[in-house]
Amino acid sequence: MPQHKDPQALPIDTAGVLARVVWMAAGNCTAVVAALVTVALPAFAAESGHSDPVASVALWLVVILVAAKLGADVAMRSGQPAVLGELIAGVALGAVGLSGFSGVEAIKTDPFIDMLARIGVLILLFEVGLESTVGQMLHVGWSSLLVAVLGVAAPFALGWGVGAWLLPAHSWYVHVFLGATLTATSVGITARVLKDLGRSQSNEARVILGAAVIDDVLGLLVLAVVTGVMAAADRGGALSYADVGVTIGMASGFLIGSLVLGVYLSPRVFSAAAKLRAPGVLLALSLAFCFVLAWLANAIGLAPIVGAFAAGLVLENVYYRDFVSRGEHELEELIHPISSFLVPVFFVLMGMRTDLRAFVQPGVVGLAAALTLAAIAGKQVCAFGVLAKRIDRLSVGIGMIPRGEVGLIFANIGLTLTVAGERIVDEATFSAVVAMVIVTTMVTPPLLKWSLGRRKSPV
Amino acid sequence: MPQHKDPQALPIDTAGVLARVVWMAAGNCTAVVAALVTVALPAFAAESGHSDPVASVALWLVVILVAAKLGADVAMRSGQPAVLGELIAGVALGAVGLSGFSGVEAIKTDPFIDMLARIGVLILLFEVGLESTVGQMLHVGWSSLLVAVLGVAAPFALGWGVGAWLLPAHSWYVHVFLGATLTATSVGITARVLKDLGRSQSNEARVILGAAVIDDVLGLLVLAVVTGVMAAADRGGALSYADVGVTIGMASGFLIGSLVLGVYLSPRVFSAAAKLRAPGVLLALSLAFCFVLAWLANAIGLAPIVGAFAAGLVLENVYYRDFVSRGEHELEELIHPISSFLVPVFFVLMGMRTDLRAFVQPGVVGLAAALTLAAIAGKQVCAFGVLAKRIDRLSVGIGMIPRGEVGLIFANIGLTLTVAGERIVDEATFSAVVAMVIVTTMVTPPLLKWSLGRRKSPV
Repeated sequence: MPQHKDPQALPIDTAGVLARVVWMAAGNCTAVVAALVTVALPAFAAESGHSDPVASVALWLVVILVAAKLGADVAMRSGQPAVLGELIAGVALGAVGLSGFSGVEAIKTDPFIDMLARIGVLILLFEVGLESTVGQMLHVGWSSLLVAVLGVAAPFALGWGVGAWLLPAHSWYVHVFLGATLTATSVGITARVLKDLGRSQSNEARVILGAAVIDDVLGLLVLAVVTGVMAAADRGGALSYADVGVTIGMASGFLIGSLVLGVYLSPRVFSAAAKLRAPGVLLALSLAFCFVLAWLANAIGLAPIVGAFAAGLVLENVYYRDFVSRGEHELEELIHPISSFLVPVFFVLMGMRTDLRAFVQPGVVGLAAALTLAAIAGKQVCAFGVLAKRIDRLSVGIGMIPRGEVGLIFANIGLTLTVAGERIVDEATFSAVVAMVIVTTMVTPPLLKWSLGRRKSPV
Repeated sequence: MPQHKDPQALPIDTAGVLARVVWMAAGNCTAVVAALVTVALPAFAAESGHSDPVASVALWLVVILVAAKLGADVAMRSGQPAVLGELIAGVALGAVGLSGFSGVEAIKTDPFIDMLARIGVLILLFEVGLESTVGQMLHVGWSSLLVAVLGVAAPFALGWGVGAWLLPAHSWYVHVFLGATLTATSVGITARVLKDLGRSQSNEARVILGAAVIDDVLGLLVLAVVTGVMAAADRGGALSYADVGVTIGMASGFLIGSLVLGVYLSPRVFSAAAKLRAPGVLLALSLAFCFVLAWLANAIGLAPIVGAFAAGLVLENVYYRDFVSRGEHELEELIHPISSFLVPVFFVLMGMRTDLRAFVQPGVVGLAAALTLAAIAGKQVCAFGVLAKRIDRLSVGIGMIPRGEVGLIFANIGLTLTVAGERIVDEATFSAVVAMVIVTTMVTPPLLKWSLGRRKSPV
């Protein structure tokens, strides 16, 4: 029964046969979906007077989920993270849309799919936050802290510089925003590679993972300040230092306040809620906590993802041990199916919004290349932040390269920002950012394998 | 450590203390939510130019999730199923909205909350379908079929009669339409009640759920034919028998076709998909299957929930044993958190849409009462359709009472129909239908709990 074996352990020829079977199945699936879309869309459109609006959303979800899983399979087969496959599947779907096949194109503009993607990002950041605790954050070493600060500052400056150099016609807001999109590391990919190499417990891993936690917070702070300043500039015309100060104060105040209040309040709320007899209280309360902080973050002018991340950071296993001890699942196990459902919607949609035609425009390929170089070079500065000895500095710098979801979220927010009528991120810039995310993500696994393999690291 | 004990096993006085603690906590939670909504809504509205649209949806989800869980707790504490508490929590929220507190009122009209509720109903019906197999359904097939036919015919005739008696000034189209709104059982509510009572696997449940599927199809057929007749009458032409035949053929063809094709195709698709290396393939593929059948059902003019239920019916554990044997969770465990998140949105929203002001209008209470009696009495005829022995006939009749979402959908369609300038359903009639839907929904859980509890049912 070959299915029960670990596919990694199969001999090469069997793996090859398997791969062909999957490709055939994948091809058939795609053909079936394509046929369904082609045949049924006109009928559906004709029927629209009586049809339930959930039907078209359901169809788009089918296309998205199938594309995401096929893309993820191809990516993992090539030693790349699943998320990259989902993103590229989205780019492929977008290309199908561009080829005049208007059915799929409607996914990009469907407001409900867009909303599901937004809810998906909240759940994703909440889940990322759940993986760390406030205690861990406070106890990361000086190396991690310095690596994180350098890893935010250097790409920010380089990205700003790239913008000023290649987009001289745009306002400096655009340049600043480009810098901001380069700040946050997507540590999931690095963590996965380290785990695959059996190096999760190495000193390099500890520095990188610790830095990534701080880096997430700093990146979100940069985003909060940058978007806040731009909103203020758009309202008031001229930018005052007071506005910048207020935004920085609000952003750090929100993060510190929600962490302090959360750490104080959430054990009490969860303990009281554990006495409710209704089923599913743990999941409902946790989601409500995530959503209320997301809403609060938005209400004071920050991105909702900042609140969702803070909510995840605050929640710790001890707060809901009463639930688990009476037989409920762990929170991570409850959240995971929801994120498996909604997060691919976000990545596929981001891929679809990448306009491949943009790369034909003069300068966009150059911008993408320059941004990618800035993203990679900027994180190499992290190597100077490693204070501890016997740690491979090159591996730390390489481990910080991938941008992933946070860069995409930033770029997506930029699409909706305007200052004095000028859009901060236009389609061409967005496509360049997506290309940067794809390339930084793809180069990291092979580079990290090479750098860690250069010498036996002292464990 | 009293938290670790089963609350059911606590002595009375401890339970009383616990209950008071919970009520205090509940009161505080409600107060906190209310305060948040009051304080923040104006600020939020002022900020709306720059805010992320996910923020308001997140806030509504917080209100809905907290209300649902508090309502469910109160219901379960009173020995009632959780769903009744979620509905009543929705009615209470709706009453808050009527009292001039416009903040919560916006939930009722938010298109994204409405869409999440619609997706929630699909997931719920899929989950309910998963609990049964096609084989099990065929086992009680004749009883279900007879129960369904009687359960459509009797309320249709009674509703027509009530209309002719109480609304003599209206045309016979109105009377026929009133009959049509009484036909379809709401599978969702009955299924949820049976699940809450741990009776999803009983013979009564199989007859009711099997009948409800056929019932839904028959009810939608009645609706399709009735609206077809009215559209033809409004145009001045006559309805052709061919049109009726096509509609009937499409509906029955869909169910039989999807079950036969599904049973043939799904083991092959799942077996091929099990070779994909991406994580979360089982969940994604199952959801895609549910959504594609929901979309297909809609495309041929049926309610999408019929397709979602058929998808759940077709899927069986054996199809995805390859996934489970490599360490993935069972499908039910993966779907459950998603339904815990989205299904309460539907029930709370249904409660909120109950316009309590309708009961004040003259004549509406009488019409509502007569309709409700017709709806309840009509479904008791179902008891005569149970052919199999050792099945509690009274419970089957009671289980068929709730009209829920389908009745509301019918009434809503009626609002938009006209024959020769006369609206088929006016606001007063609509209010009466809504009242009937709410009362039949609310009386079912206690009645069903009572009737199933009368004696040990032979399982």
